[in-house]
Amino acid sequence: MEKAQETLQAWKGRVEQELDRVMAFWLEHSHDHEHGGFFSCLGRGGQLYDDLKYVWLQGRQVWMYCHLYRKLERFRRPELLEAAKAGGEFLLRFARVAPPGQKCAFVLTRAGSPVKVQRTIFSECFYTMAMDELWKVTGDARYQGEALDMMAQIVHWVQEDPAGLGRSQLAGTPASEPMAIPMMLLGLVEQLGEEDEGLARHYAELGDWCAHRILQHVQRDGQAVLENISEDGRELPGCLGRHQNPGHALEAGWFLLRYALRKGDPALRAHVIDKFLLLPFRSGWDPEHGGLFYFQDADGLCPTQLEWSMKLWWPHSEAMVAFLMGYSDSGDPVLLRLFSQVAEYTFRQFRDPEHGEWFGYLSREGKVALTIKGGPFKGCFHVPRCLALCEEMLTILLRARAPPPPPPPPAPQ
Amino acid sequence: MEKAQETLQAWKGRVEQELDRVMAFWLEHSHDHEHGGFFSCLGRGGQLYDDLKYVWLQGRQVWMYCHLYRKLERFRRPELLEAAKAGGEFLLRFARVAPPGQKCAFVLTRAGSPVKVQRTIFSECFYTMAMDELWKVTGDARYQGEALDMMAQIVHWVQEDPAGLGRSQLAGTPASEPMAIPMMLLGLVEQLGEEDEGLARHYAELGDWCAHRILQHVQRDGQAVLENISEDGRELPGCLGRHQNPGHALEAGWFLLRYALRKGDPALRAHVIDKFLLLPFRSGWDPEHGGLFYFQDADGLCPTQLEWSMKLWWPHSEAMVAFLMGYSDSGDPVLLRLFSQVAEYTFRQFRDPEHGEWFGYLSREGKVALTIKGGPFKGCFHVPRCLALCEEMLTILLRARAPPPPPPPPAPQ
Repeated sequence: MEKAQETLQAWKGRVEQELDRVMAFWLEHSHDHEHGGFFSCLGRGGQLYDDLKYVWLQGRQVWMYCHLYRKLERFRRPELLEAAKAGGEFLLRFARVAPPGQKCAFVLTRAGSPVKVQRTIFSECFYTMAMDELWKVTGDARYQGEALDMMAQIVHWVQEDPAGLGRSQLAGTPASEPMAIPMMLLGLVEQLGEEDEGLARHYAELGDWCAHRILQHVQRDGQAVLENISEDGRELPGCLGRHQNPGHALEAGWFLLRYALRKGDPALRAHVIDKFLLLPFRSGWDPEHGGLFYFQDADGLCPTQLEWSMKLWWPHSEAMVAFLMGYSDSGDPVLLRLFSQVAEYTFRQFRDPEHGEWFGYLSREGKVALTIKGGPFKGCFHVPRCLALCEEMLTILLRARAPPPPPPPPAPQ
Repeated sequence: MEKAQETLQAWKGRVEQELDRVMAFWLEHSHDHEHGGFFSCLGRGGQLYDDLKYVWLQGRQVWMYCHLYRKLERFRRPELLEAAKAGGEFLLRFARVAPPGQKCAFVLTRAGSPVKVQRTIFSECFYTMAMDELWKVTGDARYQGEALDMMAQIVHWVQEDPAGLGRSQLAGTPASEPMAIPMMLLGLVEQLGEEDEGLARHYAELGDWCAHRILQHVQRDGQAVLENISEDGRELPGCLGRHQNPGHALEAGWFLLRYALRKGDPALRAHVIDKFLLLPFRSGWDPEHGGLFYFQDADGLCPTQLEWSMKLWWPHSEAMVAFLMGYSDSGDPVLLRLFSQVAEYTFRQFRDPEHGEWFGYLSREGKVALTIKGGPFKGCFHVPRCLALCEEMLTILLRARAPPPPPPPPAPQ
C-alpha cells in the first residue's frame, strides 16, 4: 500500500514535468503564425522539414490544446487558446475538399489547398473532436454546430451508406470492419456527450452499438483480438483476418473502460481488462528486447508489413493510459505494475532528454530508427494526451489515498 | 586481366547454380494447379500463408518463365511453358476490372475476383510484359494483340489523358512525375521492340521521350537523382521533392545502358554510368553495415518512411545487373569490382541456403526482419531476372575472352 503510494507519487512528478517539456516543444516549433494551423513535419530539434498540413494532426492539436486549457490549470493560457482557435479557423476554411460537401482532405498545402483525400472517415473524426473541444472551451455555438453536423455525416457513412467516401466496392473485396471504425466512433460519442446529458442520451444507443462492434473483435474463443473481422462478426481469411495491432487493442481497451464506467458495469470492466489489456500485452510485448510489437499475425506467422517488429511511440502511450485506467477502476496491483513496466520502457527509450518530445520510431532492438519528432502521422497528440490523462488519473488516485485531514484544533475554551 | 577472368568464371558458376535453386523454389511452391496463375504469399519454406493473387506478380512470373524458356536452354521445359500459359490465361480472364475497359486490378482472389485497384499504370505494364513474352515464346498472335492494345492504352494514360486511371486532381496536388513512369515505359519499349524491327521503329520516338524524361531526374547540377520531379523537369518542394531511392536509380541505370547501346551513344553511356550507377551507389551504400538504403533524403534529412534504412532484396538485384552491364559495355574494371562487392553482400545476406530463394527484407544491420520468401510485392521476378541476366552477360563476357580455338590439325597428306 505504502509502495503503491510511492509509485503513484513518483510517476505523478515525472509525468507532469514531461508534459511541460513536450508542450514546450510544440508551442515553440509548430505554430504557423502566417496561415494558422500547425506544422507537424519537425526534425529532432524542431526544425521544419516540410510545410504540408495533415488534417488528422491539425484536428488533434486543436483538441489537445483545448483539452489542456480546459482540464489543467497551468495550461489555461491565452497562447494555447489563440493557437487552437487559429487551427480551428484553418480547418473551417480549408479542411473540406469541395464544400458544402463534408468530405475532408487528408493533407493540405501550407496555405490550405487539398493535396490528398483518403477514402475513410478519420480526417472527419478528428475535425469533429477539434470542433467539439473548441465549443467546450469557447462556448461559441458555431463550433458545436460544426461538430454535430460532421458527426451526423460520419454516422451516415458508417451505418447507412459509405458511397460518399468514394470507395468502389469490388466483387472480391471482403466486407470487413476495421476495429478503428467503431473505436473512433465510440471516442466521439464520449467526446460529444461529456458534460452534456442531453447529448449523452442522444448518442447512448450509438455508443452501445460501437461497444458491441468492438467487442466482436475478440475472436478464437477469447484468445485473440483481431483488427479486421467480417461485417457479421467472424474471422476473415488470410493475412487481413489474422492481422493484429496490440497498441490498437490497448487503446480500444481504455475507450471500453470508460464506457463500462459510464454504464456502471463491473463484469464488462473485468472482461475488457482481460481481453483488451492483458491479452494484447502478453502476446504483443517483445520478450527479448522489451516494447510492444507494431503488428502481429494471430497464427504467429511473419506479418507482411515491413515495420511489424518496430517499436512505435503511440502503442506505448496508449498502453500507459490503459493500464493506469485499469488500475484506477479496479485497484488491481498487477495493472499498476504493468503500467510501471510500460512507462519505464517508454520513458527510457522514446524520450529525447536533449531536444524534448519523444522519438516516434525505434528498431526492434530499441534504437532510434527515425530521428523526426513529427511527421505525416505523428503530431501533438498521443504523447501529451497520454501524459495529461495519466496526470489527471494520478492526481485523483493520490487524492483518494491522502490521509484524512487532521481534526480541527480544539476550539479555544 | 587474368584476375578479371577468374572473377567472371567464379560468378558464372555461382549465379547459374543459384538460378537453378531459386527457380526450383517457385516451381515447387507457387503454382495454382486448380485456377491457374501463381501464389506469391509463401513463407520461408514455401508454405502458403495467403492465397491472394497480385497482378503485378502474376504478370512478372509469366514473363520470367517465358524469358527463361526462350533464353536459357536448360529451362526450355514444358513445365515452365504450361505454367506460363496458365498464368497468361488467368490474366486474360480476370485481370481487367470491368472488361472491355483496360484498367486492371492490383490484387485478385484466388479464383480471380478483383479485390483492389491501384490508380497507376503498373498492373497494366506487367500484363503487357507477360503477354509480349508469351507471344515471343508461343507465336500465338492473340497474345501479341493483347500486348499491343494494352500498350496503346498505357501510352494514352501517360501522354494524353490520365482520367481513366481514376485519380482526382486536387488544387494542391503538385503535378509530379515519378521516375517509375518513364522507366517502366522504356522497359516496355525495349520489350516490344526486341527481335522485331518494325515495332522497334514504331516505338523509337516513345523510347527517346522516356529516356529524356528519366534523364531529367538528375538534378542539383548533376549531384542527385530525385525520384519525383515536376512535369517540366524541376525539383519539387518538401519531402516529395527530396525523395531518393538508390535501387530505383540503379535499375533506371541499366534500362538506360541498354538504350545507349541501341543508340550507339558512348557519351550517353558514360553519363549514365556516372549519374545512375556510381552516384546512387556512393550516396546509397551504408558505410557502416553495407547494403543499399531503401530510401534517402537528398538533403541528408531523416526520411519519413519507416523502412528507409532497411535493406531490400530488389535494389541489390538491380545493382548487380547495373554494374555487370556497365562493365560489359565499358570494360571499366571499377564496375566489375563494384559488381563483386554488391554481389558478395547480396549472396551473403539475402540467400537462404536452407530453403532456397532469398529473404526480401533485412534490418539496417542485415538481420532478417521478415522471413517470408514472397508477399504482395515479392514474387518470382527480381531475383531470377537478376540471375538470368547476369548469367547471360557472364557467358558473353567469357566467350569474348576465351582464347582463340586451336588451329585445325594439318590435313592428312
